[in-house]
Amino acid sequence: MSDTNLATVPLERIAVHTITNRPWSLRECVDAYAAAGFGGVSVWREAIQPIELGEAARIISGSGLRVPALVRGGFMVHASEADRARAADDNKRCVGEAAAIGAEMIVIVPGSSPDVPLAEGRKMVQGALASMVEHAASAGVKLALEPLHPMYAGDRSCVNTLTQAREICEAIDRPHLGVAVDVFHVWWDDRLEHEIALLGKQDRLFAFHVCDFKPDMNNILTDRGLMGEGCVPIREIRSMMENAGFSGMIEVEVLSEHHWARDQTAYLAEIVRACEAHV
Amino acid sequence: MSDTNLATVPLERIAVHTITNRPWSLRECVDAYAAAGFGGVSVWREAIQPIELGEAARIISGSGLRVPALVRGGFMVHASEADRARAADDNKRCVGEAAAIGAEMIVIVPGSSPDVPLAEGRKMVQGALASMVEHAASAGVKLALEPLHPMYAGDRSCVNTLTQAREICEAIDRPHLGVAVDVFHVWWDDRLEHEIALLGKQDRLFAFHVCDFKPDMNNILTDRGLMGEGCVPIREIRSMMENAGFSGMIEVEVLSEHHWARDQTAYLAEIVRACEAHV
Repeated sequence: MSDTNLATVPLERIAVHTITNRPWSLRECVDAYAAAGFGGVSVWREAIQPIELGEAARIISGSGLRVPALVRGGFMVHASEADRARAADDNKRCVGEAAAIGAEMIVIVPGSSPDVPLAEGRKMVQGALASMVEHAASAGVKLALEPLHPMYAGDRSCVNTLTQAREICEAIDRPHLGVAVDVFHVWWDDRLEHEIALLGKQDRLFAFHVCDFKPDMNNILTDRGLMGEGCVPIREIRSMMENAGFSGMIEVEVLSEHHWARDQTAYLAEIVRACEAHV
Repeated sequence: MSDTNLATVPLERIAVHTITNRPWSLRECVDAYAAAGFGGVSVWREAIQPIELGEAARIISGSGLRVPALVRGGFMVHASEADRARAADDNKRCVGEAAAIGAEMIVIVPGSSPDVPLAEGRKMVQGALASMVEHAASAGVKLALEPLHPMYAGDRSCVNTLTQAREICEAIDRPHLGVAVDVFHVWWDDRLEHEIALLGKQDRLFAFHVCDFKPDMNNILTDRGLMGEGCVPIREIRSMMENAGFSGMIEVEVLSEHHWARDQTAYLAEIVRACEAHV
């Protein structure tokens, strides 16, 4: 697939996840993203925890930024019913928070537990999503199920491919349930183009997250690359998304101790350049 | 799948990879494995490099241990033809070494390069294997293509699933070409049982490697778990292998800085217990 004819994405079509600039407060993030010309902000719950939810909502609505997502709900896989009930309660709160800040969707990190076989875990995720999707829909909030890289299968996600995520969506079959495609998690999959096309036909392509995968990462959680620092063919995947009809915001989400330790203003300028050069 | 009725594997059906006890010389490995009651040793090339190949062969044959594998050939994916030719030369040498030490197979780590798209890389691997398999067969050496976990897709392996490995084997279709199943690399795959059964029918299940996958690993290369330290359902996978007709040796292969730093004699005793409890 050729990516040479892809136009640069205008910044107003790009949102940044607050976790990308973790040292910044919500207000600092929102002010800086708007000033840089970005069109949106995806809000991690960690960024609203230090302040009142109403205050967070005012900061965000005052910025004029779109809010593609509140991040993250999910973590639905637990051996004990009590723990599953606690997760369901937390996900209900998450829907309320998303509605309060005007987030279009919640990113669902499915969860996994060493005590629960992966196939059983996927059944739990399906059950939990089925239980929460109508409540979310009535609040005007979509749920974006995010398959995570197989290296997180043991403790973070039993949903590790777009195929598995699609099958869960098909089983529940509600318009407010779809999928988040994060290049970090799915770039290696030989069914990627096929699945993206299929999810597009089903109107289930809710989100497109970009960062990069560094083969020599220091640790598996917080050493993700800025776009261009790794081996992911980001523009090819963007092309697959657009060929499948995706016209939503492109979301920059980089978890990186290395970049968090830097001056965040200089880093944000580099993010802008990375968007222009590699997305 | 129930694993409760599986009998403990007798140690004479288990081989240990020399890398597991990296601080030890080849002779120390071989003496200790034989004394502990293991039936085999799989030899990493690093372990024979410090000595003459003939000397390595004498050490091994004197031990009475079986040698399921010489580890590792492969690394066949390079953007430049010159690099591919160098890899082919090295793989030819590897066949000679395997024959010299009486190894039944070579474990093939396919390779990957950020400069080569994954699908193209798989074509290179297929071409390289097709070019070397007759030479290997004439030396009485089998080739075991090992799919590596998707977290190594960027720089170590463009073959990341048993499905991809099987398809390459089918395309070449020679009896000396099969697959190595390493629980670390494939445990997460929802097609695991299906693929193992299919590979068994095709007589392509050449090797079964065990260790464990720790979700909280420190680094992605050398923090693998001893069996029981992670989240892999090892006995279930062993059961899939045996149901598919696999009757070869079970190979313990643990790359772990943590365990390398310990007293290797005490560690080997723990490996014996882990084999009894978790394999």
